[in-house]
Amino acid sequence: MDTLTVPKIIGLEGQRLQVGPPGVFPASGSFGIKVVSMEFLLPDENAPVIWRGPLKMTAIRQFLSDIVWGDLDFLLIDLPPGTGDEPLSVAQLLPEMDGVVIVTIPSEVSQIVVKKAVTFARKLGLPIIGIVENMSGFVCPKCGTRSDIFRSGGGRKIAEELSVPFLGSIPIDEKVAEDSDKGVPFIVEHADSPASKAFMEIVRKIEESLKSRG
Amino acid sequence: MDTLTVPKIIGLEGQRLQVGPPGVFPASGSFGIKVVSMEFLLPDENAPVIWRGPLKMTAIRQFLSDIVWGDLDFLLIDLPPGTGDEPLSVAQLLPEMDGVVIVTIPSEVSQIVVKKAVTFARKLGLPIIGIVENMSGFVCPKCGTRSDIFRSGGGRKIAEELSVPFLGSIPIDEKVAEDSDKGVPFIVEHADSPASKAFMEIVRKIEESLKSRG
Repeated sequence: MDTLTVPKIIGLEGQRLQVGPPGVFPASGSFGIKVVSMEFLLPDENAPVIWRGPLKMTAIRQFLSDIVWGDLDFLLIDLPPGTGDEPLSVAQLLPEMDGVVIVTIPSEVSQIVVKKAVTFARKLGLPIIGIVENMSGFVCPKCGTRSDIFRSGGGRKIAEELSVPFLGSIPIDEKVAEDSDKGVPFIVEHADSPASKAFMEIVRKIEESLKSRG
Repeated sequence: MDTLTVPKIIGLEGQRLQVGPPGVFPASGSFGIKVVSMEFLLPDENAPVIWRGPLKMTAIRQFLSDIVWGDLDFLLIDLPPGTGDEPLSVAQLLPEMDGVVIVTIPSEVSQIVVKKAVTFARKLGLPIIGIVENMSGFVCPKCGTRSDIFRSGGGRKIAEELSVPFLGSIPIDEKVAEDSDKGVPFIVEHADSPASKAFMEIVRKIEESLKSRG
């Protein structure tokens, strides 16, 4: 479930949702991953979602209740940064959710937003699975020099400060933007890259965290 | 006017707004730039703004009407990505604004959001000053190799496609994150960098565009 950009990234741009007798079916992307996005409901790709908060809540509720999801291993909800209407609606509609994963870049400036997200989750009683540091350093493909473009270490630091698990750092790889624009999954196309390996290690930690809580 | 992170970037972290007889005074940052941010109104830095849309509208209205701005050259309103409650509130409260500047990264994925922002501005009758391509390529400080981390050229392409002025591309510079975390202005600390020069050229184009319209 996502707002706008996931359909393109997962190769489902321009799809529409299919309606059948039991309800509305999600689109099916790479590896049979089922996707529902606001993007599928818009008349054309230029149409903005100029919906005020209460309408967003209605849309999120319908995505959760009227979509024929079938058996799922995981339901991932991709939300915009911050602590606005969308996460509040999801928290109210899914009070029993397994937890939240907070993704940040390394810089201190972005930690302002992370602190608020952690306080938000705690106030609403949502378990915090952990913090991921994305865009963590870039290694020049020519000479191998590492540049900490958005600084580094901020994710681990803020996780320790807030006593939240740190799930790992994902380095920047220019192939991510390339593959996303093509609609092919980077972690499959470039499975041996440091970024893919870091990503899969984070997935493993999330699965472990969920299992340990039963 | 901004939601959360500008106070830190401009060296005003932890400030509070001063109240006097005529109203509430903005904080004053580098070069006398006056700043009002939601951050100044929160009880502490961890507090999230869990405000639903209608409350956001109230806050934006108060920032515009109850703050003693004094004489300003420009009033810049920094908004989150997308076309939600915040830009809609601003458009309704400031129907005579000079225009909007849309900032994007080069990748096609982000152009999905740009297209919607342009349609949004047009629907509401807001002049579009132009599109800026941020994070446009990174030059390795060691060997000089350019990597198009988030691809390149997407800003100009989408501007042409939508018949909107293209204002310029700003390359990635790791000093931006460093200076932002320190609260010092990058364009002054590193005025000779390609990123600062590109930024100032964009400022010049914006001023020109505003002047030409009187």
